[in-house]
Amino acid sequence: MEREHIIRQYDLELNEIREKLLEMGGKVEVMIANAMKSLVERDSALAEETIAFDHHINHMEVEIDEKCLQVLARRQPTARDLRFLTLALKIVTDLERIGDQCRNIAKRVLELNTEPPLKPYIDLPRMSAAAATMVREALDAFVKGDAELALKVCKDDAFVDALNDQIQRELLVFMMTDPSSISRAIKVNYISKCLERVADHATNVAEMVIFMVKGKDIRHTVA
Amino acid sequence: MEREHIIRQYDLELNEIREKLLEMGGKVEVMIANAMKSLVERDSALAEETIAFDHHINHMEVEIDEKCLQVLARRQPTARDLRFLTLALKIVTDLERIGDQCRNIAKRVLELNTEPPLKPYIDLPRMSAAAATMVREALDAFVKGDAELALKVCKDDAFVDALNDQIQRELLVFMMTDPSSISRAIKVNYISKCLERVADHATNVAEMVIFMVKGKDIRHTVA
Repeated sequence: MEREHIIRQYDLELNEIREKLLEMGGKVEVMIANAMKSLVERDSALAEETIAFDHHINHMEVEIDEKCLQVLARRQPTARDLRFLTLALKIVTDLERIGDQCRNIAKRVLELNTEPPLKPYIDLPRMSAAAATMVREALDAFVKGDAELALKVCKDDAFVDALNDQIQRELLVFMMTDPSSISRAIKVNYISKCLERVADHATNVAEMVIFMVKGKDIRHTVA
Repeated sequence: MEREHIIRQYDLELNEIREKLLEMGGKVEVMIANAMKSLVERDSALAEETIAFDHHINHMEVEIDEKCLQVLARRQPTARDLRFLTLALKIVTDLERIGDQCRNIAKRVLELNTEPPLKPYIDLPRMSAAAATMVREALDAFVKGDAELALKVCKDDAFVDALNDQIQRELLVFMMTDPSSISRAIKVNYISKCLERVADHATNVAEMVIFMVKGKDIRHTVA
């Protein structure tokens, strides 16, 4: 009875970490969406909000790290649980860095909003939506141990990379034909790069999930 | 006596992880230097070598991860050792991703070497050397628990960022004045961005070291 109680308590702790990670992932997704919305709608207040929100994401990283450390110290997990916890520690770092990228986007948005609009944004919102989906699916793959879904995320990275290449080419044409657009085009280009890095983080998470599920032979071969 | 033996064995295991991490860091440093050398000296064979070497770095990541997991499972470390091991797990991921960036640089070098040289490279080698030093110092700070040195690394990131900005501006002038240089300038710009990401990884490691040494209040405030 006592032992059963301890096992249940332990499962609760692992579940708490799982849920906290999903919560953090959900918040990061909102951050990605808000950063893009602040760009498209030229909403500086929302950009400021996004920058401020990054502190919250940073705190969540510290919080989840601490919880993982506590469980590692108290429960002495082995095998599957140990892999889950150490992977959670790595994933939380990727999520935190996605938050950093959103903050970086929002900072450029604040600068862009002081100048006339460069062009209507069409591909950037698509890129942002794709990156956010990759983040959600990578985390889903982690909590479900779903290697198929993780593989889908790795493959979707090519779509985001292609959009980034296309945006860079378009911006170059802008810069060549209208030198007065250069400063703004460089900022938009930076935003595109940030989104590409968000997708890279999601891909990194997905690769780690595939490794967790399928073992060491698969890792570093999917990308 | 038996207990003493176990403690000694445990210390040996922790030391082995420490040394493996330093070894991996040293190899990553060589990779950064070789990627840059292959660019400056237009040495495609060295670029190919650098790309191939990335597999070795990937294997080291898996190997160190496994060692950390084994020690976590067998020794049930607490407090300081637990933090050391979980941080090692995170740092090894940053080192592996630095390897990815070097591979990306070498791939662009192979492309650039099929075209006439764009310009003599002056700032890129400086940037590369600075980034490599940051990687070494971040790892030194980790193994010595030296928060001062870690703080230096965080501050040095500004130097690399400034060089990257300068290179981007210069390349833009090239592109504006000679449209035939655009394709090459974009590749050189990409290489500059890769080095900036290498420095970012070193900074991330340094921030985690500061957190390890000084506790949760410092983290996310130094950058």
